Amino acid sequence: MAQLLLFTILLFSSVFVISSSSFTPPPHPFDPLTEIELNLIRNIINERYPVGPEHRFTFQYVGLNEPDKSLVLSWHSSRDHNVKPPPRQAFVIARDKGKTREIVVDFSSRAIVSDKIHVGNGYPMLTIDEQQATSELVLKFKPFRDSIRRRGLNVSEVVVTTSKMGWFGEPKPERLIKKLPFYLNGSVNTYLRPIEGMTIIVNLDQMKVVEFKDRFTSPLPKANGTEFRISKLKPPFGPPLQSAILLQPEGPGFKIDGHTVRWANWEFHMSFDVRAGLVISHASIFDMDVNKYRQVLYKGHLSEIFVPYMDPSEDWYFRTFFDCGEFGCGQYVVSLEPYTDCPGNAAFMDGVFASQDGTPIKITNVMCIFEKYAGDIMWRHTEIEIPGFKITEVRPDVSLVVRMVATVGNYDYIVDYEFKPSGSIKMGVGLTGVLEVKPVEYVNTSEIKEADIYGTIVADNTIGVNHDHFVTYRLDLDIDGTDNSFVRTELVTKRTPKSVNTPRKSYWTTKRKTAKTEAEARVKLGLKAEELVVVNPSRKTKHGNEVGYRLLHGPASAGPLLAQDDYPQIRAAFTYYNVWITPYNNTEVWASGLYADRSQGGDTLAVWSQRNRIIEKTDIVMWYTVGFHHVPCQEDFPMMPTLFGGFEIRPTNFFEQNPVLKTKPIKLNSTPTCTPKND
Amino acid sequence: MAQLLLFTILLFSSVFVISSSSFTPPPHPFDPLTEIELNLIRNIINERYPVGPEHRFTFQYVGLNEPDKSLVLSWHSSRDHNVKPPPRQAFVIARDKGKTREIVVDFSSRAIVSDKIHVGNGYPMLTIDEQQATSELVLKFKPFRDSIRRRGLNVSEVVVTTSKMGWFGEPKPERLIKKLPFYLNGSVNTYLRPIEGMTIIVNLDQMKVVEFKDRFTSPLPKANGTEFRISKLKPPFGPPLQSAILLQPEGPGFKIDGHTVRWANWEFHMSFDVRAGLVISHASIFDMDVNKYRQVLYKGHLSEIFVPYMDPSEDWYFRTFFDCGEFGCGQYVVSLEPYTDCPGNAAFMDGVFASQDGTPIKITNVMCIFEKYAGDIMWRHTEIEIPGFKITEVRPDVSLVVRMVATVGNYDYIVDYEFKPSGSIKMGVGLTGVLEVKPVEYVNTSEIKEADIYGTIVADNTIGVNHDHFVTYRLDLDIDGTDNSFVRTELVTKRTPKSVNTPRKSYWTTKRKTAKTEAEARVKLGLKAEELVVVNPSRKTKHGNEVGYRLLHGPASAGPLLAQDDYPQIRAAFTYYNVWITPYNNTEVWASGLYADRSQGGDTLAVWSQRNRIIEKTDIVMWYTVGFHHVPCQEDFPMMPTLFGGFEIRPTNFFEQNPVLKTKPIKLNSTPTCTPKND
Repeated sequence: MAQLLLFTILLFSSVFVISSSSFTPPPHPFDPLTEIELNLIRNIINERYPVGPEHRFTFQYVGLNEPDKSLVLSWHSSRDHNVKPPPRQAFVIARDKGKTREIVVDFSSRAIVSDKIHVGNGYPMLTIDEQQATSELVLKFKPFRDSIRRRGLNVSEVVVTTSKMGWFGEPKPERLIKKLPFYLNGSVNTYLRPIEGMTIIVNLDQMKVVEFKDRFTSPLPKANGTEFRISKLKPPFGPPLQSAILLQPEGPGFKIDGHTVRWANWEFHMSFDVRAGLVISHASIFDMDVNKYRQVLYKGHLSEIFVPYMDPSEDWYFRTFFDCGEFGCGQYVVSLEPYTDCPGNAAFMDGVFASQDGTPIKITNVMCIFEKYAGDIMWRHTEIEIPGFKITEVRPDVSLVVRMVATVGNYDYIVDYEFKPSGSIKMGVGLTGVLEVKPVEYVNTSEIKEADIYGTIVADNTIGVNHDHFVTYRLDLDIDGTDNSFVRTELVTKRTPKSVNTPRKSYWTTKRKTAKTEAEARVKLGLKAEELVVVNPSRKTKHGNEVGYRLLHGPASAGPLLAQDDYPQIRAAFTYYNVWITPYNNTEVWASGLYADRSQGGDTLAVWSQRNRIIEKTDIVMWYTVGFHHVPCQEDFPMMPTLFGGFEIRPTNFFEQNPVLKTKPIKLNSTPTCTPKND
Repeated sequence: MAQLLLFTILLFSSVFVISSSSFTPPPHPFDPLTEIELNLIRNIINERYPVGPEHRFTFQYVGLNEPDKSLVLSWHSSRDHNVKPPPRQAFVIARDKGKTREIVVDFSSRAIVSDKIHVGNGYPMLTIDEQQATSELVLKFKPFRDSIRRRGLNVSEVVVTTSKMGWFGEPKPERLIKKLPFYLNGSVNTYLRPIEGMTIIVNLDQMKVVEFKDRFTSPLPKANGTEFRISKLKPPFGPPLQSAILLQPEGPGFKIDGHTVRWANWEFHMSFDVRAGLVISHASIFDMDVNKYRQVLYKGHLSEIFVPYMDPSEDWYFRTFFDCGEFGCGQYVVSLEPYTDCPGNAAFMDGVFASQDGTPIKITNVMCIFEKYAGDIMWRHTEIEIPGFKITEVRPDVSLVVRMVATVGNYDYIVDYEFKPSGSIKMGVGLTGVLEVKPVEYVNTSEIKEADIYGTIVADNTIGVNHDHFVTYRLDLDIDGTDNSFVRTELVTKRTPKSVNTPRKSYWTTKRKTAKTEAEARVKLGLKAEELVVVNPSRKTKHGNEVGYRLLHGPASAGPLLAQDDYPQIRAAFTYYNVWITPYNNTEVWASGLYADRSQGGDTLAVWSQRNRIIEKTDIVMWYTVGFHHVPCQEDFPMMPTLFGGFEIRPTNFFEQNPVLKTKPIKLNSTPTCTPKND
């Protein structure tokens, strides 16, 4: 009998081995984990750690384990990718009976190659299942139901959402979350009808309500005025806008090969991660002078979005969100709607991530790629100085946009990467969606008794609470190679020396300084007139200028205003500077730390930077934070018109001359070579 | 005989009177001067001041005389414009035998109603004829021709351009200009082959060369590499970009009625001025809540573009241009090319201005209007908190762009006003065209002997010289009416009071301050966290918030780095602050003063502001300066890829709620309802 059992087991294993050995890994080391791979991971891990109602084992994060950079670069630069790609592995963070476990799974050996318990502060990302399960818990919790009824409300119209506890000095913070109830009853704009006055805390490990206090009954903003669905809104409609049709008779200009995109002079790879969302890698630009692609951005993605609210009261003080680290910027990605989220000429890519039990979830159309014809001008000149001649040359601009939208609760973040033929990459985020609001008895400012209502009355009984957004990008720039430096060129006023002998008293000039260590490369934007350039000190142009890309900051470069000793600011200390430079380190990916939930600030970008490491002539990484201060206004209710903030990296002596000088002019026509059909 | 002569004269006059009494003035008080009107002005003025080779009388500026604002507003707000429009007049600046004369011509009486000599510093704008005539003078000037030949150059390949003297403390500066020679001989990119080392000064009143010094022979950059015409460039071409077709089957969404434009919820008037270029007036937005148009911007236009170069040496120190005041931002407007300067769905307007002898010059297509479909999102939200429901609403963005391009010598300025249905107006300028360069013996940085070369080696023997651009807008905002205030709301950090009793230590809150006088409203952007809002203190929303529009600064908000006592900085003292507020004053239009050429800084915005007038609850004007510091790079050679800088004014409690909540979603489709023809 034992022999039969053994034989059966061996048979099963070999069947498993045979079927999985027919599995071909994706072609590119950065390709996102596929459904097959996620299932493999789940099976491999479940062999050691069974999953199921009796077992307390949940998958909190499953992502690609960052492969060795030098192996990736060798593979990428080898002709036809003859060199073997680096080993493909997954990095898994799981909760195992109340402990956090870090597991690395290797695909070629189909085995766990690393498995350890995380000892330290903080907890991993919340899963969708945990959010839903805890909401259901609360809705079934009798004291909560009683409190709802006491308010004259109907439990079946209540929606419960999740907020995070943050960390406020507790010595041994447990894995707790706060739950916030909202009321529908005629509204579908959940966030605009908060039921305040209750403190509800759930322990995620125990999956039970561990604290419940009904402290007071707040006013309830009305449903009327919260509607945003066009199918339900009543006339008059307006303003009237017209649709348009964008035709590309030769088809789109970009080519997608798996997850690699080629367009105009750009080539890059697109991937997806459940915490970062869209990941751009291997962005290189073709240089006609040398007839090859040159490196620009090895990897770029969101690292964190920190959203602190500015109301210190009991129901609000803890609202200090780390949207990527606590909730997952990829986990909350939306399916983009064709023709509206992205124009008609867009292509789409799906996204896959692991759910709580490890099974893959596929979300369609989470990233789109489209050519943007905004009617801008790439360069132009009219030369009229030559008598009898008038020369006009104009080159219309077209760029390639790669987009994802993450809706983390109330806020929708439109995340765009715009590639320009001139060599620039513009990166930024549009904020839209719904405000977080506080219910009050007031309908008019004249009624206000307090000194401070922490926001603006945006509707009856509704305060839009003041808050910030700090969107931090991790940009592993490799300008023409890995070894770069960061140069800060200050523009300084000079008095004209007497020897120059003209009546001009002053001018400004450049004072160049290469940052040697991390302390010299922390930048608060706007304070000084300076140019910030990432250069390759070993590459010069034929005229002797160092090859580089400079950083241009765009709208929104706010800095933090919380006190340095305030708990959320300790956890988000990486927001002190808009720009940081660190030496490449594949463990330094998440600015808020690997474990952001209930973190204590011990593993942030700001802490790593204290090591003051050498950042000259080495592989460096730039961290850029776009900052917004938001004082809400009535226009933000019940939906916010998009507010955009971002920055640009722009070639600076990277090319020998204007890289789009010899681009043939395109046209943005209006008359097609086609006959309109009748509708 | 005398009687016959008298009769003939009377007959002629009456014929003239009869024919001109059939002249109908344009419908809108801000409509630009027409060809008929310019001819009328010329005739009326010539009766008193004959023009011709024997007479030294030239028209330097002819523009609309600003009508009384209250009369304009009465006319504009009257139903069917029943109220009489204000008197239509022209303001003329002329040079009359070496003096500057200011003449006002009234159209209804066909007469000069004001005529006085300007006593004070500065000279008016240069005319195109003066530029060309002085270039010809220099080319015929024997010492110059000898100097050219001594350099081994061919006079017939020389182009002479104009630079301004500036003012450097001369007690009685004459009306002089500098002339700068350039060499073609295989290049058409005039500005890239300067012939330096000669000082050439022309007296405009005497029309002769008054100073000529041949100080040294500079190297001459080569023609090879300066080409920018696609018809002359050689392969390889690239990067490859695709044309596209933008179709609007129902036609464009805007309606043009004379010079008034209506689109979506916007209405505004477009005009043209030889100094300012494009002028936007009466911009109002339709509010569905109250079923009427509400005022936003009474008048907005460029006031000045200050471009100082940062080389204090003999050939460069004076290059401190005031492009609008010295050359005319309207005078150097280009004819926009269809499909390239503006997309295929654009409409165009011509521009007319007076030449030196008063005859009208018409330039076609100097302004364009088009709908911009950039693929952006106006607002969106995906609501997933409600179990079992997923609600997605997306509204694609479309905006209306009004554009002009002014090419002042080497630089092309793309000036855009973008009207958004959400109520914002985005304003800004794209810099492109050609660098001003200095010839040197170097081809590589390793050869440099000096401590400072004042720029970057961008090509062989070519330094792109460091410089700034300060683009100042005059914005007469009338937010819901003329009487406004300027509110600076500082965001201040607060320690949480103990009474709040939560572990949160800090937050920021708003500290509102209305600027009472001019001194309180001078703002250097980026130094403080503050919101800047123009409000109507007599208009509140139903929730009690003051109706307003706030200012969001975009890319490029540099400030000046010249010393305060340096002559160009005295003349451009208005660049110290990015934002100034003044009380409405129809003589305060040009930030550099009415007479910018050789001005001494006595009539600038900075000087007017010293009066420290009341700016609270009154008709106020905002002055906004976009600032760029430009350290040239090789990508700027031989043409600069466009660099954009601007700002936004955005409704803030102007509306009761999101003004585009009830906009029906449009689509940016790609499949047309049409059958492709064969090409």
